[in-house]
Amino acid sequence: MRPSGRAADEMRTIAIETGFTKHAEGSVLISFGDTRVLVTASVEDRLPPWLRGKGEGWVTAEYSMLPRATHTRGQREAAKGKQSGRTQEIQRLIGRSLRAVVDLKKLGEFQITLDCDVLQADGGTRTAAISGAWVALRLAVNKLMAEGKVAEDPITGRVAAISCGVYQGTPVLDLDYIEDSSADADANFVLIEGGKIAEAQATAEGAPYDEEALLRLLRLARMGCDRIFAAQADAVK
Amino acid sequence: MRPSGRAADEMRTIAIETGFTKHAEGSVLISFGDTRVLVTASVEDRLPPWLRGKGEGWVTAEYSMLPRATHTRGQREAAKGKQSGRTQEIQRLIGRSLRAVVDLKKLGEFQITLDCDVLQADGGTRTAAISGAWVALRLAVNKLMAEGKVAEDPITGRVAAISCGVYQGTPVLDLDYIEDSSADADANFVLIEGGKIAEAQATAEGAPYDEEALLRLLRLARMGCDRIFAAQADAVK
Amino acid sequence: MRPSGRAADEMRTIAIETGFTKHAEGSVLISFGDTRVLVTASVEDRLPPWLRGKGEGWVTAEYSMLPRATHTRGQREAAKGKQSGRTQEIQRLIGRSLRAVVDLKKLGEFQITLDCDVLQADGGTRTAAISGAWVALRLAVNKLMAEGKVAEDPITGRVAAISCGVYQGTPVLDLDYIEDSSADADANFVLIEGGKIAEAQATAEGAPYDEEALLRLLRLARMGCDRIFAAQADAVK
Amino acid sequence: MRPSGRAADEMRTIAIETGFTKHAEGSVLISFGDTRVLVTASVEDRLPPWLRGKGEGWVTAEYSMLPRATHTRGQREAAKGKQSGRTQEIQRLIGRSLRAVVDLKKLGEFQITLDCDVLQADGGTRTAAISGAWVALRLAVNKLMAEGKVAEDPITGRVAAISCGVYQGTPVLDLDYIEDSSADADANFVLIEGGKIAEAQATAEGAPYDEEALLRLLRLARMGCDRIFAAQADAVK
Amino acid sequence: MRPSGRAADEMRTIAIETGFTKHAEGSVLISFGDTRVLVTASVEDRLPPWLRGKGEGWVTAEYSMLPRATHTRGQREAAKGKQSGRTQEIQRLIGRSLRAVVDLKKLGEFQITLDCDVLQADGGTRTAAISGAWVALRLAVNKLMAEGKVAEDPITGRVAAISCGVYQGTPVLDLDYIEDSSADADANFVLIEGGKIAEAQATAEGAPYDEEALLRLLRLARMGCDRIFAAQADAVK
Amino acid sequence: MRPSGRAADEMRTIAIETGFTKHAEGSVLISFGDTRVLVTASVEDRLPPWLRGKGEGWVTAEYSMLPRATHTRGQREAAKGKQSGRTQEIQRLIGRSLRAVVDLKKLGEFQITLDCDVLQADGGTRTAAISGAWVALRLAVNKLMAEGKVAEDPITGRVAAISCGVYQGTPVLDLDYIEDSSADADANFVLIEGGKIAEAQATAEGAPYDEEALLRLLRLARMGCDRIFAAQADAVK
Repeated sequence: MRPSGRAADEMRTIAIETGFTKHAEGSVLISFGDTRVLVTASVEDRLPPWLRGKGEGWVTAEYSMLPRATHTRGQREAAKGKQSGRTQEIQRLIGRSLRAVVDLKKLGEFQITLDCDVLQADGGTRTAAISGAWVALRLAVNKLMAEGKVAEDPITGRVAAISCGVYQGTPVLDLDYIEDSSADADANFVLIEGGKIAEAQATAEGAPYDEEALLRLLRLARMGCDRIFAAQADAVK
Repeated sequence: MRPSGRAADEMRTIAIETGFTKHAEGSVLISFGDTRVLVTASVEDRLPPWLRGKGEGWVTAEYSMLPRATHTRGQREAAKGKQSGRTQEIQRLIGRSLRAVVDLKKLGEFQITLDCDVLQADGGTRTAAISGAWVALRLAVNKLMAEGKVAEDPITGRVAAISCGVYQGTPVLDLDYIEDSSADADANFVLIEGGKIAEAQATAEGAPYDEEALLRLLRLARMGCDRIFAAQADAVK
Repeated sequence: MRPSGRAADEMRTIAIETGFTKHAEGSVLISFGDTRVLVTASVEDRLPPWLRGKGEGWVTAEYSMLPRATHTRGQREAAKGKQSGRTQEIQRLIGRSLRAVVDLKKLGEFQITLDCDVLQADGGTRTAAISGAWVALRLAVNKLMAEGKVAEDPITGRVAAISCGVYQGTPVLDLDYIEDSSADADANFVLIEGGKIAEAQATAEGAPYDEEALLRLLRLARMGCDRIFAAQADAVK
Repeated sequence: MRPSGRAADEMRTIAIETGFTKHAEGSVLISFGDTRVLVTASVEDRLPPWLRGKGEGWVTAEYSMLPRATHTRGQREAAKGKQSGRTQEIQRLIGRSLRAVVDLKKLGEFQITLDCDVLQADGGTRTAAISGAWVALRLAVNKLMAEGKVAEDPITGRVAAISCGVYQGTPVLDLDYIEDSSADADANFVLIEGGKIAEAQATAEGAPYDEEALLRLLRLARMGCDRIFAAQADAVK
Repeated sequence: MRPSGRAADEMRTIAIETGFTKHAEGSVLISFGDTRVLVTASVEDRLPPWLRGKGEGWVTAEYSMLPRATHTRGQREAAKGKQSGRTQEIQRLIGRSLRAVVDLKKLGEFQITLDCDVLQADGGTRTAAISGAWVALRLAVNKLMAEGKVAEDPITGRVAAISCGVYQGTPVLDLDYIEDSSADADANFVLIEGGKIAEAQATAEGAPYDEEALLRLLRLARMGCDRIFAAQADAVK
Repeated sequence: MRPSGRAADEMRTIAIETGFTKHAEGSVLISFGDTRVLVTASVEDRLPPWLRGKGEGWVTAEYSMLPRATHTRGQREAAKGKQSGRTQEIQRLIGRSLRAVVDLKKLGEFQITLDCDVLQADGGTRTAAISGAWVALRLAVNKLMAEGKVAEDPITGRVAAISCGVYQGTPVLDLDYIEDSSADADANFVLIEGGKIAEAQATAEGAPYDEEALLRLLRLARMGCDRIFAAQADAVK
């Protein structure tokens, strides 16, 4: 039995509110249950030095938790003077996941930065961030195309992410914080609409897992991402 | 004529939404027009080293802007590895302003940290932060008192803050970004309900100002803070 | 009664020694009683990137206390690896104050950096720094003009600063350290010769203050700055 | 055809030289072909603060590349003043992988740090580091047991890691640098002797991959890890 | 011929002004010609962690140049966020040199920090700092002894330092900046009154030097330090 | 009697293994007994900004100890976020020593960085680093000349370094860790083949030393460096 009473393959409510802030070219507040992440997409025509003059663009991401997004207050990374390993690992994952569905040549010499700021955390912040970032990116690219700055759509498809895990011996979908903090295994899948995999990460936190469990988690993730793809489609309609 | 069409002594709409996030002991989303600041109050029983064992508490604040709270994306301070002078100046002001209405002895050995994160900026972020922080603090202290951890109310009154400035020769109340970026003088007042002043800061950005202008700005600030005190009272009812 | 035996409107002795060091384009050792600040003005033809090619110059300031300028030794900021919020707040104030009397277009593409290093502290270090910085700036600009590098005088007037405060219920001028550390309110005024105000900052440290007190402090500050303007005039004769 | 001429399921030569340095409790130079990593295991009786007094130990890892381990010189992280996101991600993975085979209660209040320094890089540095770290850990724990400081063996089994990827459409085992830099998908598996999985990470660098490819990569990884388990067994005999 | 017209074995004027600042337990402004260094000795009863509870004290030093102590403005180390290698090398040398004449057991559990801040630089700042630091230390220790906090004099003798170098083929004493910046060899000697050597450092900047030159430089240094020992004796009388 | 049983003028075994790593233009593993340093020479055509366009090159060095090169594990400098004063002092010395035998004009616009990483430490790491760096530099320059990128040999001679010290009253050559940690005086000499001195540093750790001891140490150093010059010659044959 899951603490939330959900079935093993039951996700939390997904909500996507576009236009949550007004300055960014794309802006989304995405919720997976009580996990809420504000994602903005910022378009700049200044590329990182190693990409200049190649006729290509870049998509990158930054991630942060507000200090009191969590049960107890965490120290602010700007005050500590450095980003934790966890933060850096997550923001690298987000950037990589989005680039999996962008043709950087078609984007042209623009950099789009996806800022993912967790306002409230209850498990699954990185997967909500990736799923919301796709929407923010889609909105920003639509704007570039409407303004005639980008001719051909550089986005090749939808990407979404979801966590799953082995909780008290059972593979379950979309872990909340309580499950996440005591799961035996904890996985994040980044999937492309149509069935392909952009990234699979499955970590044993307690006992190691076997191939069958990995496959079962992947199947749960497919179910979850299908729900997210539908919500993304609704959000950008 | 103000760009927004407001009268010289007209404020933007104030909105205060309590309970915006669920983990913090106090949580508020405050808006002054398009400026929106999320303030959380976090109670901890671990004091800074220099205050331990004195039977007193501490109230402090941290401030940050999300990178794309503004018209163009600013670099994330956590990524830069340090907080700007502006950030530090503002968070010192917020902490000082709130301590002006707290009896630290009555608070007892608790530290309350007010995290002020600007989700969207359109001028006046520090004054919205101070005004919202009072509400978050009030909620957190109410909780401490309801739980019997604090016996006597340590909050001695309300505190609010508002910006004013000299815009195209005219003193005006509650500057938005367009006004703020071209004002001749720019002032922030932190006032205590009842008429006293906790902090006055008035800076000439263009031409210096005279005593009469300073007094006129102070009077505008009194009008503005009265509106905020009423909104604070509503919010914590 | 003030600890020093001074009258409420009595300043400490002001001394300004020009040419204290030989390399800088302008150099001053300014004393307000036992507070002693070494200010140098350094002229460079390399502007910050955001100002290049606009035909304008820049005036900026840096501030530091020697570790043992104070009663007990403070940690050296270079050893800690960062400047405190207080340091940054003060150096921003100094730069802003000096720019209030400089026409950056007339200065042309030079940057003048005012380094304010407190050799000994006894209250009022930031106001001594501003007052001394004007002299160092004046000397450096005189040199630029004498060398024909600047055609028209970019300095539009004198600027000086002084602290005042409410000490044991009485508004007093030019706080020393003992007064400063127990004042109810603590103000710093930056005034332009002729009566205008460049910056007013008045902070309640204990009880909040009222409008009358603010005005009384401003009047004391006018008296103090008149004395400083005279000393500045003598120093650059 | 692989650039090295290897078959798809052919690993590079594995070499493990124990006792490469003399001070560490465990020390290993491990080579996967031209990739060479020096791993030392250091035992300390000082635990991180959050673990003290719980009767448990800790196993952690640090990772670094010498500046010229690679084709072109990289900037030294100590000179830059921070560790890259990649470094932090890898050292977190190494620590987690080793803890998967350690019973921290049986280890008792010791911390073992696995320092993995890449002397020469040719792809697969993180997997060589994990595989070598197990040997260094085994040696250090043997020493603790021989000295009577640890009573019961805290190591529950062997752990090894290997990279695989999809190179020019074909799943291949143990990528070298040339393959790694142009692979369509790049995976790292951390396996426990006996068949269980501690960590699976598979990233699409070019085209996304499907479930079948994931399973094929996992099977290649099993073959590779069996070879490494044998080499580890030889090394600690 | 030396640029200053001095003879090869002629020093610049030495001046030592004690009590230059009032808060420190010992305070000295020392000049070697135009090189001026403010040295303060601060006594604290808080020792570094690794020395606590051993019944011994510690003597350490910090060194800094004011940004415009030199011909062109250098970046402030507190603003850069780190001390240069040169700064660290010099402050380690100063600390080591002073400890050469202190019996740390007799000092008892006090730490004395010698802050050496260069107000104006014209070559030889580190040697002026060491020579002045001895005076500041002597004054601080005298104070500790007068207050009965230290029973027996922990200072075992005088220490002084002087630079010499090979300038245009000739060994010369007490290099000024012009000589220093074009010398073939540049040496610093730290000598103990009575003839022993605490530290010798001789660096070839241009052509390497031979044993005879090293001995000649050492003899010049003896002459210079004898002059400094006399000035130190005068200063603390 | 020396702990190792060596005679006062007896060095430890010197071993120089060239080509220890494959990517660097020059690569050497040098051992002085149990002290082992990996030195790589990296050639880049990107010069530091202050040298560009002058038709000259640059030779610089970086130094680091692996965390467990020593008896007890030291904190990794990359993790601490800064290099220690000792590290910076040593790498400045290495760079200076090598530049003493390079004609930077003949080198042309190349920068050669000598990375000296101590794999195992037993005293004398900086002198082994300098002696090995010469070999790595020689190999890298040979490569540049063979490729026709440098026309005339910019290396003017051999440079080597050795430590000596006063151990239990006796001057001895090539201190190992046990001797080094209890020596009365500790010296490092950098000598040029043919007899000239590039750098002499002699520090009293316990009792100060006299001129005779300094000369005796220098003579020991000559004997030691002659051995190293021979080993260098063999290594690059």
